[in-house]
Amino acid sequence: MLQNDENVEEAKSCPMEEFDNIRVGRTDLTSFIESLIERGGADTPSAQAVARAVVDASSRGFDTHGVRLVPHYMKTLTGGRTNPRPELRFTRLAPSVGHVDADNGFGHLASFRAVEEGRVLADETGIAAIAVSRSSHHGATGCYTLAAARHGYAAIGMTNTDAIVVPHDGVKPFYGTNPFSFAVPVTGGDPLLLDMATSSIPLNRVFLRRATGALLPPEVAVDSAGSMTTDPHAAEGLLPLGGLNFGYKGAGLAFMIDVLCSAFTGMGHGATLPLFGGPDFSTPTPMGHFFILLRPDRFQPQESFDRRVADFLEDLRAQPAQPGERVMAPGDPEREATADRAANGIPVDPVTWGTFQELADQYGVARPRSLQEGASRS
Amino acid sequence: MLQNDENVEEAKSCPMEEFDNIRVGRTDLTSFIESLIERGGADTPSAQAVARAVVDASSRGFDTHGVRLVPHYMKTLTGGRTNPRPELRFTRLAPSVGHVDADNGFGHLASFRAVEEGRVLADETGIAAIAVSRSSHHGATGCYTLAAARHGYAAIGMTNTDAIVVPHDGVKPFYGTNPFSFAVPVTGGDPLLLDMATSSIPLNRVFLRRATGALLPPEVAVDSAGSMTTDPHAAEGLLPLGGLNFGYKGAGLAFMIDVLCSAFTGMGHGATLPLFGGPDFSTPTPMGHFFILLRPDRFQPQESFDRRVADFLEDLRAQPAQPGERVMAPGDPEREATADRAANGIPVDPVTWGTFQELADQYGVARPRSLQEGASRS
Repeated sequence: MLQNDENVEEAKSCPMEEFDNIRVGRTDLTSFIESLIERGGADTPSAQAVARAVVDASSRGFDTHGVRLVPHYMKTLTGGRTNPRPELRFTRLAPSVGHVDADNGFGHLASFRAVEEGRVLADETGIAAIAVSRSSHHGATGCYTLAAARHGYAAIGMTNTDAIVVPHDGVKPFYGTNPFSFAVPVTGGDPLLLDMATSSIPLNRVFLRRATGALLPPEVAVDSAGSMTTDPHAAEGLLPLGGLNFGYKGAGLAFMIDVLCSAFTGMGHGATLPLFGGPDFSTPTPMGHFFILLRPDRFQPQESFDRRVADFLEDLRAQPAQPGERVMAPGDPEREATADRAANGIPVDPVTWGTFQELADQYGVARPRSLQEGASRS
Repeated sequence: MLQNDENVEEAKSCPMEEFDNIRVGRTDLTSFIESLIERGGADTPSAQAVARAVVDASSRGFDTHGVRLVPHYMKTLTGGRTNPRPELRFTRLAPSVGHVDADNGFGHLASFRAVEEGRVLADETGIAAIAVSRSSHHGATGCYTLAAARHGYAAIGMTNTDAIVVPHDGVKPFYGTNPFSFAVPVTGGDPLLLDMATSSIPLNRVFLRRATGALLPPEVAVDSAGSMTTDPHAAEGLLPLGGLNFGYKGAGLAFMIDVLCSAFTGMGHGATLPLFGGPDFSTPTPMGHFFILLRPDRFQPQESFDRRVADFLEDLRAQPAQPGERVMAPGDPEREATADRAANGIPVDPVTWGTFQELADQYGVARPRSLQEGASRS
């Protein structure tokens, strides 16, 4: 699945510092994406959820799962893979268990709904699990755990994805990159956020390296025979986190995520899903997600909880580091990107920017405005 | 903390296939350990919990956390670190949240109690979280998730431990090996079990390599300057899972586990804990554990759940493998050990075996019997 044109095209738009990015204001960008998704046929809640998630990811520096995904989502919408007007159904299956049937709509809408419902249940019982079925790609899993943490909840989030990661000792992709996220609130600051694929690198890194010609790090990818390769053009699959020796650990995490997102949601496991990158963009990709929300003040007095998190953070950030480095907490690198982007706008790579112009014209939506352009005009 | 004699002594007893192990029957071994721990001053429930956990781990081939830990536990008991007659207190803090105060007793007792209480809560609400405070080393975390899964629950378990793993880009140990476990029931078979440290290797592997003279794999350990080393004698700390490039992922998991086991339990984070290996064996090491139990039939009809897990397993185990290998599900290697050990007895490495004889005589407990000895006599 690494060969299709769709993904290679996306690869070129993979945003990295190498590109001379265009900067766009957050409000302008959000409004553009909302309008575009709506003109693509989606209802307003779906369009708002997608825009919220991808702009949130981009605003935090999580560019691989940010606004560059919008052209892809337009393709799933117009191709028929994504239900443009889903009727989400929430069912409370037990005092602490909820289920969201996403009706093949955007995974973003279903996932925001899941953590909202999860908050209500966790308020009553202290911890809640929300299983999401018949969903689709939801961008960065951290968007949803972060949304919960901004309301004071700790949250675990995960999703299975289509097969791209070989099992330990395997030769053929079976697991998805199956991301795992954990967010926890911090008094007087942004939540701490862990948001990671259970492979060493995301698929997009392979495509980027194909475009730039740079080699991959060792023990992150395999060729068609399942042998480790550093050649991005030969890469046909990814190795789980831990590489050749310890990949059973990354694969073990992928296993847990796959089971929670399939057997607990009523969906098939990742290897049964149609491929994210097509070529089929008309068949739904019935993904499952799984969220757990916890109310810290049902475990410990809020003040004691907050102090312990603060003590942990202070201790961690004060740890001695390698020369020229700093020991950072999860989400710290993104925190710096957030400050920069709040001040200077959200970067859009040139390929995505070009596609935005085309889509704007095609769907009769006002083009977003480059802040540099605005600045040079003023 | 890698230098103290305690740990080096333990290293020598680290059981691996290299040793010509003694085999002991499960009942005999359990009874011996129970008696020994009781003669060391512990009450019967504590002794039974320790014996149950370590014999369970050893019977599954999880030797690093098996019966070889018994001499260590005797030291924590007689030294005063472990409360021999703890009064466990369980408090239900919310419909789905429980707390076990372990009263500085053995972590095994508190952890078995935690998953038992968790089952009751999960029966009512579908999912439950149990935080454990003022606990201590509990052996293999998988013993407790497995205990839950044997009753039909899926379970997540974790514990923080004392500082031995350097943070990503750090030079000094801060995180523990912070194990993470997930178990899920399988119809007509043993549960699937993931039970992994969030470092690439456990501490005991370093000690073993010191004893055997073999080098460590790259990117698993650091020297006193925080630089990667493959020399087990130079190793002063471990790298998180993911090594030099992707260690922020293993460290991110360690962070999550540390927060859930400290801020949610009321304990300090791992770096505040006294060292497992001593030299102080008189001060309690107030560890926190965290368990989540889920009732599958509150998420999906039991039959549908079971079928999906079975389908997943069948698909995974049928995946093509590297030459001479098989693609295995988490826990599969242990499953083979379990069959062998059920038939042929539980292996005890010679150093641990020697210590068992000494302890038996010292505390007036009948020595366990080697099955080989029995065989040659019969």
